[in-house]
Amino acid sequence: MKEIRYKVIGVIHSPFTSPRGMPIQPAGARGVKGTVHLKEEYAPGLKDLEGFSHIILLYHFHLSRGSPLQLKPYMDDALRGVFATRAPTRPNPIGLSVVRLLKIEGKVLHVEDVDIVDGTPLLDIKPYVPEFDRREEVKRGWLSGRAERVEDARAD
Amino acid sequence: MKEIRYKVIGVIHSPFTSPRGMPIQPAGARGVKGTVHLKEEYAPGLKDLEGFSHIILLYHFHLSRGSPLQLKPYMDDALRGVFATRAPTRPNPIGLSVVRLLKIEGKVLHVEDVDIVDGTPLLDIKPYVPEFDRREEVKRGWLSGRAERVEDARAD
Repeated sequence: MKEIRYKVIGVIHSPFTSPRGMPIQPAGARGVKGTVHLKEEYAPGLKDLEGFSHIILLYHFHLSRGSPLQLKPYMDDALRGVFATRAPTRPNPIGLSVVRLLKIEGKVLHVEDVDIVDGTPLLDIKPYVPEFDRREEVKRGWLSGRAERVEDARAD
Repeated sequence: MKEIRYKVIGVIHSPFTSPRGMPIQPAGARGVKGTVHLKEEYAPGLKDLEGFSHIILLYHFHLSRGSPLQLKPYMDDALRGVFATRAPTRPNPIGLSVVRLLKIEGKVLHVEDVDIVDGTPLLDIKPYVPEFDRREEVKRGWLSGRAERVEDARAD
């Protein structure tokens, strides 16, 4: 298996019409509201999702161009390996954001803490479950002392 | 954009040669060791990753067949929407696991808490960063009272 094909199952809408000036992570997008418009045919898959307060969105960084294996991240001046960053320019430009789920109306999800550019193609929705997804006593590598400042950081 | 194409950038190895009897999440795979073999050409992208104690693996559920929009999850008897579950049978069968990073030797990552079947194709590696990925005061929907028991659950 060399190539994998996925379908676009919906579109994410947000106030960010361009990557410029965007918060670079959900932590910096607190209170920013958006919507996820699932394609009609997938709507039955949303059953029971509304009980979860947070969901994981997987999406395609459709504006990403190029995939350098090392790059200077927003929050740093050193060249870092792409897998040690959350940059959109990756060998497979898949984005991941944990957002707050406010409500579901039909095939439309209302979400908050959205750090995603308007018009982004959706690949998957998963419930966020602390027992699966949350880790304690974490080392942050080169992001130590930087990740905490992400709330103020904006994309160039 | 209707179809998105990704490359296989490596392979995940684990003691689980079949989905049967596997832990269904990393929480149930504590102490289980595995390796991630990145393709040689992507190895420069691993620079600086070793400082992180946990990483997010995104991978392709290559053994997944079919994608019912509603299904009975392992831990339940009711029919749930697929997006309210972590089942491998999804419209886009992308898997997500947070694993512990033990060490990196060249293009091989030694990891722990692996709930992934041997031979799984790798799509992406991201550093796990609490400020980005961890949420508090979470509601677990239908998994309330069930997620905590996941450590003992095994796949059918």
